[in-house]
Amino acid sequence: MKLWEENIRRVVPYTPGEQPAGESIIKLNTNENPYPPALGVKKAMQDMDAGRLRKYPDPAAQSLVGCLADYYGVGQDQVFVGVGSDDVLATAFLTFFHSGKPVLFPDISYSFYPVWADLFRIPYETPALDESFGIRAEDYYKSNGGVVFPNPNAPTGLFLPLSQVEEILRHNQDAVVVVDEAYIDFGGTSAVGLTRRYENLLVVQTFSKSRSLAGLRIGFAIGHKDLIRALNDVKYSYNSYTMNIPSLILGVEAVKDEAYFCGTLEKIMATRERAKARLKGLGFSFPDSQANFIFASHKQAPAGELFQALRENQIYVRYFKQPRLENYLRITIGTDEEMDKLFAFLESYLK
Amino acid sequence: MKLWEENIRRVVPYTPGEQPAGESIIKLNTNENPYPPALGVKKAMQDMDAGRLRKYPDPAAQSLVGCLADYYGVGQDQVFVGVGSDDVLATAFLTFFHSGKPVLFPDISYSFYPVWADLFRIPYETPALDESFGIRAEDYYKSNGGVVFPNPNAPTGLFLPLSQVEEILRHNQDAVVVVDEAYIDFGGTSAVGLTRRYENLLVVQTFSKSRSLAGLRIGFAIGHKDLIRALNDVKYSYNSYTMNIPSLILGVEAVKDEAYFCGTLEKIMATRERAKARLKGLGFSFPDSQANFIFASHKQAPAGELFQALRENQIYVRYFKQPRLENYLRITIGTDEEMDKLFAFLESYLK
Repeated sequence: MKLWEENIRRVVPYTPGEQPAGESIIKLNTNENPYPPALGVKKAMQDMDAGRLRKYPDPAAQSLVGCLADYYGVGQDQVFVGVGSDDVLATAFLTFFHSGKPVLFPDISYSFYPVWADLFRIPYETPALDESFGIRAEDYYKSNGGVVFPNPNAPTGLFLPLSQVEEILRHNQDAVVVVDEAYIDFGGTSAVGLTRRYENLLVVQTFSKSRSLAGLRIGFAIGHKDLIRALNDVKYSYNSYTMNIPSLILGVEAVKDEAYFCGTLEKIMATRERAKARLKGLGFSFPDSQANFIFASHKQAPAGELFQALRENQIYVRYFKQPRLENYLRITIGTDEEMDKLFAFLESYLK
Repeated sequence: MKLWEENIRRVVPYTPGEQPAGESIIKLNTNENPYPPALGVKKAMQDMDAGRLRKYPDPAAQSLVGCLADYYGVGQDQVFVGVGSDDVLATAFLTFFHSGKPVLFPDISYSFYPVWADLFRIPYETPALDESFGIRAEDYYKSNGGVVFPNPNAPTGLFLPLSQVEEILRHNQDAVVVVDEAYIDFGGTSAVGLTRRYENLLVVQTFSKSRSLAGLRIGFAIGHKDLIRALNDVKYSYNSYTMNIPSLILGVEAVKDEAYFCGTLEKIMATRERAKARLKGLGFSFPDSQANFIFASHKQAPAGELFQALRENQIYVRYFKQPRLENYLRITIGTDEEMDKLFAFLESYLK
């Protein structure tokens, strides 16, 4: 090894889901929204002034921050935006988990958490989910350097009731608690309201799932203004201008169209409930998802084989080859038509 | 102070230049390009499919990486892209400056360097520029944890000849040397060719200046594939999908149109040389800039007062209130028309 190579920060990077291209593919592997973004997004895109791109964007992302503050009924100084919720969460890890004490997150949850912890040399512990994949609030009552968990959890889809979230907050007044609500709009209840009472609570959400804008990379956090200020200080110490002009303009349009947003969510939730019934009929079992995916295991067919068979038939789902998860598939809720093709394949495959 | 606040990473953030809005403003404060991006950018923007935004972008940014690799005649595994060169440089700091030994950069250079070093707790030393604001190559021959400098330097605009850059590389085979070429296209010679011989050299450039796309946030690095792999590992440990779909699509268009690119550069360089003559005539002195700005000091008028007077007249330039720089203004090269308004104001103000 060359000498300069010895000083490189070594990390084991996160592996994102595949992004296969092609019209015939049924892509149910990265929890994208099967419906396009609101019509206003398309219109604003066509109206965008290319000449404006020569200038830097607003580093404070005022337009987007302001519209999110209005939408969630919080102050503008309580909203932070970033390049997807990954950027927001990574910045939160870097900013808040700096005590030297271990940060706590579930053993089964978003697989990026241990990657960020390793990257920033943050110690961590991972309390195990219970037998039915549930988070046990009491596991988070011990001394720690911070707490983070997805709600609903991924890849299980299980929603932890707000009363339990509040119990975790009550027991953790001295550390920052991050609730990662990437999937909250699909049936859960957001903890945003709790930010009024718990100034150490940071709620993180994304435009990538419920708002059909994974391709734009927009995530945000809501919390007490002191938390937001600290996040912004770190952001301004890393990259002053994270949100580009298309994100700022188009993101606002996605928030504006409440009717389209709710309509899309209802369609996805209806498809999900229908999918639960069909999958059960086919011999699958799964935690009762409140997200836009179902984490399903079949009583006979091994998940690894099923994953391969689906893939060969142009149906992409997500498979995590790791303890406790290795017999499950995470299936994103697509359109009814896409799901029907999935069920048809499963029906013939499992026969 | 609340207990959870004690564990926050404290930083002194970088202060970006103001982004005032308004048609009548002459904005010469953040080194933006006065000309719009290539026509293909506008066309591609109008043709963009809003429906595509529901899906994640390609995490490897293949289209953009491929077109940059072709343009610079290097392998695809030798190109890294990020959200502006700030993201690329910050990732390079995090990845390569991990030895515990001090990193070296000039005392007067891009003011983000000490901010990144502080953020990531990287020790650093800042050799002083010489009397005429020049980088002394020999200051970088001592033991260090890495070297980084802008070329041309900012805010001075001075270009360090490649022979000197190579001397710095020759004396630093055991650490990574980052040459930050944000302004290289305005008259300097890029060190990209040296990456063939020095595998510890990382050259960083941006679309924000010469390619008129500050609003899109695109930066890139070229270097040996082992350097690029290390950068990508850290990037994938932070945020898998940094480049959004508009950046990927529109960035490619900006690289394609070589004729427009060269034409724009020639116009800006011609305006710069004309500006040098006019400023000299008005009693200013300045290092001989090879960038799209001039760092000028007047023999009588104090820079701080001049800055204010310009500002009150809707002309924004950049003023750094710090030792050795406090009597200088950094003036971005605008259109001929904008510069004429600046000269007219200066002429009447200095009378």
